[in-house]
Amino acid sequence: MIRNLLFYILLLLAVSGLNAENGHQLWLRFNKTKIDSQIFSGIIGDKNQFAVNEFQHDWNEMTGKYLPMVNAQTDSLLIIGTLNDKNIRPFGLKNELMKLGEDGYVIKTIHQNNKIVTIVASAGESGLLYGVFHLLRLIQIDKFSYNIDIVEKPSYKIRVLDHWDNLDGSVERGYAGRSIWKWDELPNVISPLYKEYARANASIGINGTVLNNVNASPKILSPEYLQKVKAIADQLRPFHIKVYFSINFASPSTIGGLKTSDPLDLMVKKWWNDKANEIYKLIPDFGGFLVKASSEGQPGPQDFGRTHADGANMLADALKPHGGIVMWRAFVYSASKDDRAKQAYNEFVPLDGQFKDNVIIQVKNGPIDFQPREPFSPLFGAMKKTSLMPEVEITQEYLGHSIQLVYLSTMWEEFLKSDTYQEGIGSTVARTTDGSIFPQKYTAIAGVANIGLDSNWCGHQFAQANWYAFGRLAWNNKLTSDQIADEWLRLTFSPKEKKAASFTNTDWEKNFLTPVKQIMLESREAAIHYSMPLGLHHIFAGLNNTHYGPGPWWAPKGVRVDWTPPYYHKADTFGIGFDRTHSGSDAVSQYHEPLCSEFNDVNTCPEIYLLWFHHLPWDYKMKDGRILWDELCYTYEKGLNEVRQFQKTWDKVEPYVDSQRFFEVQSKLRRQCRDAQIWKDGCLLYFQQFSKRPIPYDIERPVHDLDDLMKIKLNLKDHN
Amino acid sequence: MIRNLLFYILLLLAVSGLNAENGHQLWLRFNKTKIDSQIFSGIIGDKNQFAVNEFQHDWNEMTGKYLPMVNAQTDSLLIIGTLNDKNIRPFGLKNELMKLGEDGYVIKTIHQNNKIVTIVASAGESGLLYGVFHLLRLIQIDKFSYNIDIVEKPSYKIRVLDHWDNLDGSVERGYAGRSIWKWDELPNVISPLYKEYARANASIGINGTVLNNVNASPKILSPEYLQKVKAIADQLRPFHIKVYFSINFASPSTIGGLKTSDPLDLMVKKWWNDKANEIYKLIPDFGGFLVKASSEGQPGPQDFGRTHADGANMLADALKPHGGIVMWRAFVYSASKDDRAKQAYNEFVPLDGQFKDNVIIQVKNGPIDFQPREPFSPLFGAMKKTSLMPEVEITQEYLGHSIQLVYLSTMWEEFLKSDTYQEGIGSTVARTTDGSIFPQKYTAIAGVANIGLDSNWCGHQFAQANWYAFGRLAWNNKLTSDQIADEWLRLTFSPKEKKAASFTNTDWEKNFLTPVKQIMLESREAAIHYSMPLGLHHIFAGLNNTHYGPGPWWAPKGVRVDWTPPYYHKADTFGIGFDRTHSGSDAVSQYHEPLCSEFNDVNTCPEIYLLWFHHLPWDYKMKDGRILWDELCYTYEKGLNEVRQFQKTWDKVEPYVDSQRFFEVQSKLRRQCRDAQIWKDGCLLYFQQFSKRPIPYDIERPVHDLDDLMKIKLNLKDHN
Repeated sequence: MIRNLLFYILLLLAVSGLNAENGHQLWLRFNKTKIDSQIFSGIIGDKNQFAVNEFQHDWNEMTGKYLPMVNAQTDSLLIIGTLNDKNIRPFGLKNELMKLGEDGYVIKTIHQNNKIVTIVASAGESGLLYGVFHLLRLIQIDKFSYNIDIVEKPSYKIRVLDHWDNLDGSVERGYAGRSIWKWDELPNVISPLYKEYARANASIGINGTVLNNVNASPKILSPEYLQKVKAIADQLRPFHIKVYFSINFASPSTIGGLKTSDPLDLMVKKWWNDKANEIYKLIPDFGGFLVKASSEGQPGPQDFGRTHADGANMLADALKPHGGIVMWRAFVYSASKDDRAKQAYNEFVPLDGQFKDNVIIQVKNGPIDFQPREPFSPLFGAMKKTSLMPEVEITQEYLGHSIQLVYLSTMWEEFLKSDTYQEGIGSTVARTTDGSIFPQKYTAIAGVANIGLDSNWCGHQFAQANWYAFGRLAWNNKLTSDQIADEWLRLTFSPKEKKAASFTNTDWEKNFLTPVKQIMLESREAAIHYSMPLGLHHIFAGLNNTHYGPGPWWAPKGVRVDWTPPYYHKADTFGIGFDRTHSGSDAVSQYHEPLCSEFNDVNTCPEIYLLWFHHLPWDYKMKDGRILWDELCYTYEKGLNEVRQFQKTWDKVEPYVDSQRFFEVQSKLRRQCRDAQIWKDGCLLYFQQFSKRPIPYDIERPVHDLDDLMKIKLNLKDHN
Repeated sequence: MIRNLLFYILLLLAVSGLNAENGHQLWLRFNKTKIDSQIFSGIIGDKNQFAVNEFQHDWNEMTGKYLPMVNAQTDSLLIIGTLNDKNIRPFGLKNELMKLGEDGYVIKTIHQNNKIVTIVASAGESGLLYGVFHLLRLIQIDKFSYNIDIVEKPSYKIRVLDHWDNLDGSVERGYAGRSIWKWDELPNVISPLYKEYARANASIGINGTVLNNVNASPKILSPEYLQKVKAIADQLRPFHIKVYFSINFASPSTIGGLKTSDPLDLMVKKWWNDKANEIYKLIPDFGGFLVKASSEGQPGPQDFGRTHADGANMLADALKPHGGIVMWRAFVYSASKDDRAKQAYNEFVPLDGQFKDNVIIQVKNGPIDFQPREPFSPLFGAMKKTSLMPEVEITQEYLGHSIQLVYLSTMWEEFLKSDTYQEGIGSTVARTTDGSIFPQKYTAIAGVANIGLDSNWCGHQFAQANWYAFGRLAWNNKLTSDQIADEWLRLTFSPKEKKAASFTNTDWEKNFLTPVKQIMLESREAAIHYSMPLGLHHIFAGLNNTHYGPGPWWAPKGVRVDWTPPYYHKADTFGIGFDRTHSGSDAVSQYHEPLCSEFNDVNTCPEIYLLWFHHLPWDYKMKDGRILWDELCYTYEKGLNEVRQFQKTWDKVEPYVDSQRFFEVQSKLRRQCRDAQIWKDGCLLYFQQFSKRPIPYDIERPVHDLDDLMKIKLNLKDHN
């Protein structure tokens, strides 16, 4: 009996490959990727070169040994070096490399006299590191060949993660545990996580990090905290990651002892100049400031009757001598009667041309606030004499926290490829921000980080894909979500990890890669279907946290109406949706033709934005012939069924995944399914009170009562 | 605007017929049933006759006036009377009526000289009342015609409801609020509910009620409480309902001051004789005692080394002079090693022939305990010289409490029609208990009541159908569940109630009656599918109360194993099910051939009882070609989908039902669906730990984690 039991335990261990696999290694699973160690027979490179060391470290993890350092040609040689390196110069790449800039690189295989040479070269140290990671990636996923010829140059000069981490260790909109920045123990204690974090970011080309929340504590500017920032910066520097932080605009008065923080006040200017000097003395490569000012209660130049330009320029002047920049957020709106979606445009467009060249206006992808789907913010392309940088949200504030599997790359791809028409057809958001259309001294893109102390970094194993995707899109804003998902899955769930299992790579691609990639690619659309389809937005309540569950009914007295869902969905007995046409709030007019007319006309408005721009009767006829109410019902139902399909797909891939990650994802998908049901039931039962129509009878019925769902209370104290 | 609002409110009221409709009237909705008042033009009957008054009262509710009392022939005359009535005698029905007994009756229409006479006649007052209710029912549901010729005689002489109501007002296994018996205010205050209760029971032929829980307090025998019982009996008597109560076998020592309660002790006998005299002095038509003795910790004759026969006979002797009976329960089992399913048979069959003729052994339908599905108890037909009465459970202890819509008639029909083969083919349980096969002085059937103080009496509107069905089957054990459901639906949701609505009776039958009846008829099978399919039984845990949610895992240390689910399902890595074959517990041998062989052989054992009788490997091949594990999965899934289908059906009938009852049932179906999901997930995920096989991938995946479901604790303190 005991013997039998033992046998079963051993069998279980053997079958499920129970080596604890918590996902901490992210996509850098070199020690688990066994590769053909004969790809290269030797390496030429500077032993003291950081990129060379990174390569050797990872090569060793994959093959169990370092690649021999050689001086001369071998059968299959790898050369890693910058353009001035004596081993690179003979290849005549100087001009090409100069054009690619510090961060760009080439990876080429050259066949010479029956010998093969693979070169990784760059004009800069940073580019060399990126090139090395690129090469390693190719090897890891079996895409390396002796015929490669890769030339890479990043789309954006600055590729930055915004941490909404508070100095007390909490993370606003963080769903992966506490902040990785351990301010209490800094600068004396250095967590090994800082280097791991930097390496992971460098591996996908991220080159900056804003350490703290945009709702910033002035304390970050204190000498004490600057020492802590310096300690982090020292850890990140080898990986070519610059440190930035968010500042509180009122700092001169709150911690500087001044009577004002008026940006035109000479003492204030001096205070910031001095502060900049102090920072750069400690951190010579400090990146600059991120500023949320005169927004959602944060102090700002408007407190002193000044404009955003006045405020931003004052800071820009202080940073300019040191090469620093100001990322000034355009996320502003007030409780005025004007449509919230219009306010940022109305406030910033008149300032076009007034900003210094080291100011970049950071604009959220949509005009409201990181909703599951929004049209792009009309600011993109509209400010032709000002640098603009997109801000996207990697942390899933509005897309299921770390509970739901939602791959965000498709959302960002949709956004980046949106055509603003501002400079003719093809004026995509990507091209209006990456320097292709408007000359900007700096180009940049920011993603709000989804990183915390959870052992898997992001709370959900698949949330790592969003971090990865942001980095890859920041590097190359033309990549497709399919390419990125493919790459990430191959790196993160490599078939090579389950050696014992009896499947081939082809099996793995067919039975794991293809179906799981399909989940990823469909996941954001599914989330829209079961939460806010057809252009609905911001109809959240609290379930376990804010901005998670449905709350279209949530509108307690005394709360600003623009913080309540009815402001956004406007459901009534006539119909549903926000009229932003010419006869409504006229937000459509902020879009360049032909978009303005397209959005304004209900017949040409894309149905994905229908209720964003139009208030329509419940029996409005959709393109598929259904009435709007029915379409809404079928779409919520579809979303729920999509999650059920994800569950089926995931359960089937069990043989291809280590058990820990398999069960973690399985369990989260179950919760996602339950919550999709709550969304469907809550929204349909609530809106039905207005539509007064039955849910079509071929649709599965709600399993919750509206009264029960409405008991859930929303806590709106946090905002960004 | 205000005007618009008012318009909508009025429209809403008009459309949904919002007269509060809580279901308190049960199936006796005369005041809501408008009928053709020309059916009868006059009535002949004794004004002082209770049945005549009941008729006039209800006729008045239906037509708005009383039927004129006449002395002679009119166009369409109704005559109501007993066989000796001068208006009945001329019809020469005496012999026929005598054969039908006190409770039987005829309803006939006779055509004489272009005049029509409808007669309701009986040998007894009780039969006359039943006949009147039958006639009213026919009129209510449009089944009355001038060609009727009805002869009715009940299947069982005693048709009794067992209330598991405690003297403190609580109800064991009660899911409809507190007890209707208000002991505190009795005998001075008489709740109008008592008469309403009696009338409802009389309308379906129930003629007895056991007032208190079988786990009985001795206090019921105190002079104080006997006065209270008398007060109730006085209320029920006009409706021909006798009062019984459960006694505590230890009463002589606990309240009588004797040193023992030994049934062979002369003082004990005398005590019971005296007590009987005391009772009958107050209540001359007292029915008798219900006794749970030497069962689940209750005192009994075995405490004194006596047999069940000794105990029952001693009480029978005390009651016999007064015409009272003893209903002695066979629900006995101990924590012995012997299969619980066998114990009652083993204990009682040897006593066959030893019981007095006014003792009836009350036997639960199945050998375990009112499970969703059990084979019939092998005691039926096996005790050939003893009166046996079936006990069924109307309250849904194991079938979803008052949360789930489960129509139990199909279960009872299956049970009553089960062939015991004890006296050849056709020895159904019905025939072995109703006097058709064995001569018994008394025949009886008991149902554990599902009645409480909830305004709709039963907690769930559709639980009323179970009360109704029990009464109807007790009256006629050959009725089909379809007939009963049809009758109940027509009475309870009459199409005549929604006059404003624009549908015909045909519409109503097609769109309401047929689909809702289908829900009812499928509901118990669905409940089995999602909770305990294929012969599984007693695998409950606590959800909001005991015996509600799934708990196949529940087996804390120190709890009697026969009170834990693993005792019943016996799941292990080999397979699942309780081996009751010859090579197992041999419970099959308690069944008469050919059942014994049929159940013993896995190839002939009906699959509905498969895991009741067999422990089978997970890959056992089912008749449909699936392996057992897969079949289990598909069946749980089917059960969940059946509930979803019930929801669809119910939602569609909204136009045909008053809004209060519609929404009540809708809300409960939603909960039922959520709980069916919990059953499916809990059982499949738990059993999967043993089967080690995937849930077939075309099945919708679980949405709960087993760990979460297992956190629910079961409270097993109550037992019956």
